Amino acid sequence: MTDYQVFNLGNLRLQGGATLRGAWIAYKTYGALNAAKDNVIVFPTFFGGQHYANEAIIGPGQALDPERYFIIVPNMMGNGLSSSPSNTPMPYDRARFPWVSLYDNVSSQHRLVTEVFGIERIAMVVGWSMGAQQTYQWGALYPDMVERIAPICGSARTSRHNFVFLEGVKAALTADDSWANGWYDSPPYKGLRAMGRVYAGWAVSQAFYREEVYLDIGYSSLEDYLVAFWEGRRLFADANDFLAMLRTWQNADISLNDKYNGDFAAALGSITARAIVMPGRTDLYFPPEDNEIEVSMMPNAELRPIESIWGHLAGGPGFNPPDAAFVDAALRELLAS
Amino acid sequence: MTDYQVFNLGNLRLQGGATLRGAWIAYKTYGALNAAKDNVIVFPTFFGGQHYANEAIIGPGQALDPERYFIIVPNMMGNGLSSSPSNTPMPYDRARFPWVSLYDNVSSQHRLVTEVFGIERIAMVVGWSMGAQQTYQWGALYPDMVERIAPICGSARTSRHNFVFLEGVKAALTADDSWANGWYDSPPYKGLRAMGRVYAGWAVSQAFYREEVYLDIGYSSLEDYLVAFWEGRRLFADANDFLAMLRTWQNADISLNDKYNGDFAAALGSITARAIVMPGRTDLYFPPEDNEIEVSMMPNAELRPIESIWGHLAGGPGFNPPDAAFVDAALRELLAS
Repeated sequence: MTDYQVFNLGNLRLQGGATLRGAWIAYKTYGALNAAKDNVIVFPTFFGGQHYANEAIIGPGQALDPERYFIIVPNMMGNGLSSSPSNTPMPYDRARFPWVSLYDNVSSQHRLVTEVFGIERIAMVVGWSMGAQQTYQWGALYPDMVERIAPICGSARTSRHNFVFLEGVKAALTADDSWANGWYDSPPYKGLRAMGRVYAGWAVSQAFYREEVYLDIGYSSLEDYLVAFWEGRRLFADANDFLAMLRTWQNADISLNDKYNGDFAAALGSITARAIVMPGRTDLYFPPEDNEIEVSMMPNAELRPIESIWGHLAGGPGFNPPDAAFVDAALRELLAS
Repeated sequence: MTDYQVFNLGNLRLQGGATLRGAWIAYKTYGALNAAKDNVIVFPTFFGGQHYANEAIIGPGQALDPERYFIIVPNMMGNGLSSSPSNTPMPYDRARFPWVSLYDNVSSQHRLVTEVFGIERIAMVVGWSMGAQQTYQWGALYPDMVERIAPICGSARTSRHNFVFLEGVKAALTADDSWANGWYDSPPYKGLRAMGRVYAGWAVSQAFYREEVYLDIGYSSLEDYLVAFWEGRRLFADANDFLAMLRTWQNADISLNDKYNGDFAAALGSITARAIVMPGRTDLYFPPEDNEIEVSMMPNAELRPIESIWGHLAGGPGFNPPDAAFVDAALRELLAS
């Protein structure tokens, strides 16, 4: 019993050189495609998230209203639903799962959108975090198709600092001997918990902790927040899946493809879609400064920081209602333009 | 052969309840105590640092000039020279080394200064990072003795966010099975390297990485910087020693003692020393905002951020010459006042 569909990609030749035979994208749609096929929103997933998580901001009365739009949520590869280390058969299973690039994900999603649904125009691509990176990539690869983009708390290229933050996350997870270089039989829980604890300091801001917001949102102590939220959210996914997504993230660059050959400025300059770029003001690993640089190179983009102490989580679906309202208003405005 | 002195504390009753029998402080002095005993500077060490590291900003022509001042550098307990897990005899050795508080350190240093040297007035206490925390503690415990303080990139109380950052560091180190709950026979190198990699994202700023400063200071690539600098600086110290200092850090609060009974505002308000408080503008775990709050509660203090992209390292002895010059000028000004 699944609540989603599967699109078979066949033998997917990856940028890194491997071929993922019988690769697939798990996806879910919300609402109905209209006759003109002009009510399409694509909403990719984030690191560790599956389409379920995106549902927090999909619904009647929200900007992402399935009564009006046809919303496609493609699961990112590595997230446990689309092709991932945990579900790929031998020989590319587990530790041997290959690098899947940002381009590999988005070009596969493009096949889904065009081959399955015959869609030629997309009203908006929107995503948070790694979903924002996919959003940028959509805009740069298919400028004639994508009318609007809303990247939230993400960048068009993973910064060196962000890369280093992820090195810390990875080092914590893989320090656990149970990880066994990815050939574990039972989950490396100690490493997954360590990963969660490293994440805890990064994903919300100094002010979030200073004001003890965790007490306001239902946690009984700081330690309870670290265990129940940060460790808890890492224990139910596969370690190799996390590492596969992390590798995608660390190497994300919208110009890393034959179309732009590493010319980052050209890739940004090609994004003709109307864009509202929403960093979190206090995001520590996707800081607003990187988006500011990007927006200056985009022809039709506006920088609109989310003024919040929720750090990276400010833009995350379902985390903080006031921030969600800010994002929702921006998406409505963008869709109306 | 050692280049330092040892002060025996006898049986040191710690705030946490343990008694560290035969505890000691290793210290080194620079310059000569004058007849009036009014040329004293105390310069405590930082996390992972020994007095050698402080020597980068001690010397003729510097603010901390041994031709003029008598500079005492007491090694913090846990740093491998003063009483530490790695050098304490059984039964309080290794994993059983007890919690040594900020107060335990500074009150012991006070005994050193008064009992060994008969000093009654201190011209200045200065320190970076955990050294800054000791500096604040000196000012709050001995206001009639301390004339000036210069806390650099540190706070009078470890913030909740800073605590969480350290939880990540600790989780990475202790995820290594070789750590063996502190009873390792050979060093848990994998965990120490993981700790170094987690630290790398925190201790310098996003802009430091964006501008690839690591290439300007002699590292051949980002990975070379992570291995040679960040892993390298953690491999030569003892894991339990790190964890002992980390525990001191996580629980640091200048009001956590009988004099103030947790009244943080009272402790800050008691610091009558003239103070120049120097946060790093881009410090991610001792951010300027915490110092700003503290300075507002101190009667004679000025906030003077180090405008630098070197993050926490901006104030570290010997790291970045322009920042060191900024700090040196402030120390001269403070000493002249």
